[in-house]
Amino acid sequence: MFSARLYAGSLRSLRPAGTFLRHLSTTKVCLGRAVVYANNGDPSSVLSVVSYPPVPSTPPPNSINIKFILSPINPADINVIEGVYPSKPTKTDALTTQGLGSEGKPVFIGGNEGLAQVTAVGQGTANSLKVGDWVIITKQQAGTWMSERNILAQDVARVPQASKLQEDQAATLTVNPPTAYNMLHDFVRLKEGDWVIQNGANSAVGQAVIQIAAAEKINTINLVRSRDNIDQLKEQLTQLGATHVLTYDELADKSTRDKIKVWTGGKPIRLGLNCVGGKETTSMARFLGQDAHLVSYGAMSKQPLSLPTSLFIFKNLTAHGFWQSQWYKTKSAEDRDKLMEVLVGYISSGKLSTPDHEVLQIKSSQSDDEAASTIREIFKKLSEGRYGKKVLLRVD
Amino acid sequence: MFSARLYAGSLRSLRPAGTFLRHLSTTKVCLGRAVVYANNGDPSSVLSVVSYPPVPSTPPPNSINIKFILSPINPADINVIEGVYPSKPTKTDALTTQGLGSEGKPVFIGGNEGLAQVTAVGQGTANSLKVGDWVIITKQQAGTWMSERNILAQDVARVPQASKLQEDQAATLTVNPPTAYNMLHDFVRLKEGDWVIQNGANSAVGQAVIQIAAAEKINTINLVRSRDNIDQLKEQLTQLGATHVLTYDELADKSTRDKIKVWTGGKPIRLGLNCVGGKETTSMARFLGQDAHLVSYGAMSKQPLSLPTSLFIFKNLTAHGFWQSQWYKTKSAEDRDKLMEVLVGYISSGKLSTPDHEVLQIKSSQSDDEAASTIREIFKKLSEGRYGKKVLLRVD
Repeated sequence: MFSARLYAGSLRSLRPAGTFLRHLSTTKVCLGRAVVYANNGDPSSVLSVVSYPPVPSTPPPNSINIKFILSPINPADINVIEGVYPSKPTKTDALTTQGLGSEGKPVFIGGNEGLAQVTAVGQGTANSLKVGDWVIITKQQAGTWMSERNILAQDVARVPQASKLQEDQAATLTVNPPTAYNMLHDFVRLKEGDWVIQNGANSAVGQAVIQIAAAEKINTINLVRSRDNIDQLKEQLTQLGATHVLTYDELADKSTRDKIKVWTGGKPIRLGLNCVGGKETTSMARFLGQDAHLVSYGAMSKQPLSLPTSLFIFKNLTAHGFWQSQWYKTKSAEDRDKLMEVLVGYISSGKLSTPDHEVLQIKSSQSDDEAASTIREIFKKLSEGRYGKKVLLRVD
Repeated sequence: MFSARLYAGSLRSLRPAGTFLRHLSTTKVCLGRAVVYANNGDPSSVLSVVSYPPVPSTPPPNSINIKFILSPINPADINVIEGVYPSKPTKTDALTTQGLGSEGKPVFIGGNEGLAQVTAVGQGTANSLKVGDWVIITKQQAGTWMSERNILAQDVARVPQASKLQEDQAATLTVNPPTAYNMLHDFVRLKEGDWVIQNGANSAVGQAVIQIAAAEKINTINLVRSRDNIDQLKEQLTQLGATHVLTYDELADKSTRDKIKVWTGGKPIRLGLNCVGGKETTSMARFLGQDAHLVSYGAMSKQPLSLPTSLFIFKNLTAHGFWQSQWYKTKSAEDRDKLMEVLVGYISSGKLSTPDHEVLQIKSSQSDDEAASTIREIFKKLSEGRYGKKVLLRVD
């Protein structure tokens, strides 16, 4: 249970210190801050920012204290806050029993992905973490939009070869690059010169797919929505390593089948990656060859996957889903570390770049209310799809 | 190539005998007969019946002569004749070079499934077939709606333990029972007491699924369309071994989820079998548990498979197709024999019965034209769905 684990050892030691803490908060020394919500709903309405007392400097056994460096805001986080995501956080009263924030009631702490630095190590932690190590949070919906916390050592993974990475690279390492890598490797054994087709190709995962495939000499056909600056987008994706980029309209054109046959030399496309759903995916699936696999990791169109049964029966199509959170749950720590090693290799050698992003800093000079309105504004823009960039949160 | 194989050795020996054969045909001795078509189209328009000269009594090396006993008419055969089925027969001129039927042009011979008896064995046949053996045709779209033919030994399989089987049981052994058996075994490792859900449960395959599952102590939830005699149908399927039978309307009822939970004791349903497509399959898929497999082998509604992407991503659903023809193509003769052994065991022990059927006999007393109009009439009724029974063709 989340609430039992968070501050597992610190709650008891803090409870009697209420008065002391209220005193602390008036003198403004080193309080932690977190982006939280008490009820599910539209993030631009339900999110607030609370201050909480410092984490005790000696972590309970098997746990560590960490200070967050950067915590991404991912599209799925919006669904989590809305309460429509299957993987749900648990409310914690660790922050609010101090009488701080949310009128003393238990709250959810926002954020799933995050890069943090170890500040203290409890006794008996198994994964030999040291103070100063960079770690990423691997426990689902643990809460990462905050300044510092105590966490079980088993719920983080050390960032391998951290010295080779920038903060933004390490902070965005957990979700999108592994999704791209695993989808390219877990379903079809691709060889150099093979072909993959994907839609939503300019998403963060899509860009990682392009780059990892290019690094492994796999060809990609990349589908994107048409837009005003389509040539610029095509150029950008081609720079990343895309073999071909097509709009959905171009894909629908009758001449495209022949064109793709020329590109591939008639080689069947055996892997399709889908984050869109709906008719765009139906069209894409028709370009898959015999014994192909269609892997879905998103449904941006909010339309169901609709596929002719004949593709399954006569072309032996197999349709799968992919969810990186589930991968982390079912794989061993060694598998996880091996994957990170590979990805860090790609990043540090310049083969895999971090998608466009900006850092949103919650400054210590801001009041909780000021910080909350900054956060809510960002989410308003994010829900409207007005943010082309990924947002990385830094909570001072 | 089909046309090269059929009568591989007999064509040459027959060609000079045209006059002789025309003479034979006027004296009506032992001509073969086949249901053929020269062009794709509605079976009730394009099918005709032709007579052809007897197959030479000595088969070419590696081939055998066979006499058909019963040849089923399956739903897919209609699609083959219409030309919309992916597995296409090849035209043969083996019958028509004799100046018989179809104005001397090459024709397709109808039929994919068939039970035949070996009447002569050529030199060097590898599978030790003997005269008198019962065989089933395993080569796709080889042509089975006929009285006799020569065929490569590799394109048939001996019916195992034939003495234990009736003609109708052996004739319907090749397509539906193996489809049911393989779908129950190839995708999920089911244990006694596990649950399977299927739609189109009263189809020939559906009935075989019910019986094989019951024999293996697997529970089935069976979905059928509502109809006037629904209680009778439910009773019939329950007699076969169905654990539960529901109409699609009953499935849609809100109380059904709880009802199924009680039935299964909360055990997740890990296998769904689909021959319908469309919204009935969407509803069914929502009852599948975590890590389930949905296997499609038909699309009777002619609607595509439409599934929420979330089932794939968050419940790790995998969607497959199954095509028995493809199974035969990719598996070894030993696999095939092993499968037949198991199925004959089920049939001979009374655990797997042949679905309702009738034998349509093309009598030697009928002229080709009379026979053709009988056949066309049957297909008219079949296309209109007015035949509740399977039709087994016997060509004298």
